[in-house]
Amino acid sequence: MKNLTRNFCLYLFLLLPFSIFGQQQKSDFNYTSAKELLLVGKAMPGGEYFHRVDTAKYNQMPPVVKRLFTNSAGLAICFTTNSPVIKAKWTVTNSGRMGNMTGIAQKGLDLYIKRDGKWQFAGVGSPSGVSSEGTLVDNMGTEEKECLLYLPLYDELKNLEIGTTSDSYIRAGQNPFKNKIVIYGSSILQGASASRPGMAYSSRLSRSSGYNFINLGLSGNGKMEKEVADMVADIDADAFILDCIPNPSPTEITERAAEFVMTLRSKHPDTPIIVIQTLIREKGNFDRKVKKWVKQQNEAIAKQIEILRKNNVKNLYFIKEDHFLGTDHEGSTDGVHPNDLGFDRMLQKYKPHLSKILKVKFDKE
Amino acid sequence: MKNLTRNFCLYLFLLLPFSIFGQQQKSDFNYTSAKELLLVGKAMPGGEYFHRVDTAKYNQMPPVVKRLFTNSAGLAICFTTNSPVIKAKWTVTNSGRMGNMTGIAQKGLDLYIKRDGKWQFAGVGSPSGVSSEGTLVDNMGTEEKECLLYLPLYDELKNLEIGTTSDSYIRAGQNPFKNKIVIYGSSILQGASASRPGMAYSSRLSRSSGYNFINLGLSGNGKMEKEVADMVADIDADAFILDCIPNPSPTEITERAAEFVMTLRSKHPDTPIIVIQTLIREKGNFDRKVKKWVKQQNEAIAKQIEILRKNNVKNLYFIKEDHFLGTDHEGSTDGVHPNDLGFDRMLQKYKPHLSKILKVKFDKE
Repeated sequence: MKNLTRNFCLYLFLLLPFSIFGQQQKSDFNYTSAKELLLVGKAMPGGEYFHRVDTAKYNQMPPVVKRLFTNSAGLAICFTTNSPVIKAKWTVTNSGRMGNMTGIAQKGLDLYIKRDGKWQFAGVGSPSGVSSEGTLVDNMGTEEKECLLYLPLYDELKNLEIGTTSDSYIRAGQNPFKNKIVIYGSSILQGASASRPGMAYSSRLSRSSGYNFINLGLSGNGKMEKEVADMVADIDADAFILDCIPNPSPTEITERAAEFVMTLRSKHPDTPIIVIQTLIREKGNFDRKVKKWVKQQNEAIAKQIEILRKNNVKNLYFIKEDHFLGTDHEGSTDGVHPNDLGFDRMLQKYKPHLSKILKVKFDKE
Repeated sequence: MKNLTRNFCLYLFLLLPFSIFGQQQKSDFNYTSAKELLLVGKAMPGGEYFHRVDTAKYNQMPPVVKRLFTNSAGLAICFTTNSPVIKAKWTVTNSGRMGNMTGIAQKGLDLYIKRDGKWQFAGVGSPSGVSSEGTLVDNMGTEEKECLLYLPLYDELKNLEIGTTSDSYIRAGQNPFKNKIVIYGSSILQGASASRPGMAYSSRLSRSSGYNFINLGLSGNGKMEKEVADMVADIDADAFILDCIPNPSPTEITERAAEFVMTLRSKHPDTPIIVIQTLIREKGNFDRKVKKWVKQQNEAIAKQIEILRKNNVKNLYFIKEDHFLGTDHEGSTDGVHPNDLGFDRMLQKYKPHLSKILKVKFDKE
């Protein structure tokens, strides 16, 4: 019996190196809650960690707006680590998959790492359901890496943990973005139909300028309600961009746009306010009703800007539709939302205006 | 009794205008099976209507390759109609949604209509499950329209019917594309991660040239097996493009590439054969193993081309990787597959080569 025990112990000892130095070493990861790291991209502090806006505080906003502000579009986690592998475990809701979004963009993760002073794409987390687990990037060196992990564009993130090898460190990063330029907008701003979270246009603007472009995109619901104007006006912003014109009807634009602008202006006497016309919907190439509708939206906002200017509202800028998606009609995913090609062309049109108005310098991408 | 019958008939007559000219007119659609129209984009006639290749005839190919050839990537239905509305009912399989594709691209439809001699985007069909129904485009005029409806990129289409108003006609169109340029490739060719079916790069090449670029993209499985080479060699093609290098291992490239080329050459003594290096995977920005792997793949194919040229194989062309996706690292959806921005940059690199070799003129998009 003694011999048997000794043999069994020897057997265990012989197995040990395989379990410790082999398989176990490879799978030995520590998971750190994203809440212990730094969240960037929020308009204001407060509220649920992964929500864009404190919807309890701004309880008077329309229910659908409050729900959309629980989506983590434009938010990112900053951290530094020397881990050669970065993994993630995350949980979203059981909402259905959208037809015009990839899973990665809707419910997934998108990692950038800084190299030579620029943010460079590193890897994605593709969702597998409500709870997902995956390797974002593998086989790196053990040098320190400054990381920026973009969160799902069209879902509420319930939990996120970042996995690093147990012999490495992970620390909250510093906010790499300065100032605060708030963009209020439609589904296009929220990120439909970028291919992954980091390709939402506000995030592309942030990475290429170093300025903090805040994503207040509201799928189908950037309709300029008074209660939303009050919330936006509370933000301590260096500039406001209104890119919501795809959502309100021409009548709603006529009824609400001037008041929305004046609500901001009343609390921010000198802050630049930039209003952008809606892009032309590619659905309107052949659908005459859609084409007419978009024309009426753009005429309505132009008229309101004219009235505001006549009323001597200063520091008010207006960017007119100018083939934002190009001229070949290939820049959309579904006739409404830009694909990444459309977004790229749109930013080529936006940037010279924003650069001039905001005195911001964008990298040539 | 007679009076009652007369009154009832009068009642029916009074109802008639509402049912015929009112509600019924709006909802009165005829559905035409796509099988009664013209299918374009197939390499060879025969086999299941919506399959790319007759997999029963080429039964020796690997099972996964045969399964992927049942996906309708690159196929389209040509028809003409004067209907002011175009609808569709279609059925695919119950395969799960992919993380790196939109539903529209994976399982949906994408309609183009010819305007001023060019194909212009008109609308999409977004899938809602195994069976879907939707309006592709609405509110058009009643002029005759030449239509091209692209089919799902990553699913097997089981059935497709096209709905037109009951007072309009729908007819099979004529094939708008001439010649046959066969592309054999990977998931990237099959269409990952274009935003919609018509944005697969072979389809973009066809629309912008008028030539018939055939999509033989095989997700993860463009591995140049002998049985597949035999099938491809059976195609009566005007040129062959091999854009499969992302899939085989460096060893498989060394073992199979020359034989694949020579199998084509033996049946097509003078037909141009164009081999393209794999694009650089953006995953390899930080993953050193991925970066090295791709480099080895490209070195392996370069070596095989050199050997083939030394062996005096004529009309063999080689396109070298040259920042196909650009230099800002934003051209991919997941670090492997181009997004529409990446595809656009890739085509800007491919086109000058293809134009010169094939004497094809591409539209400036």
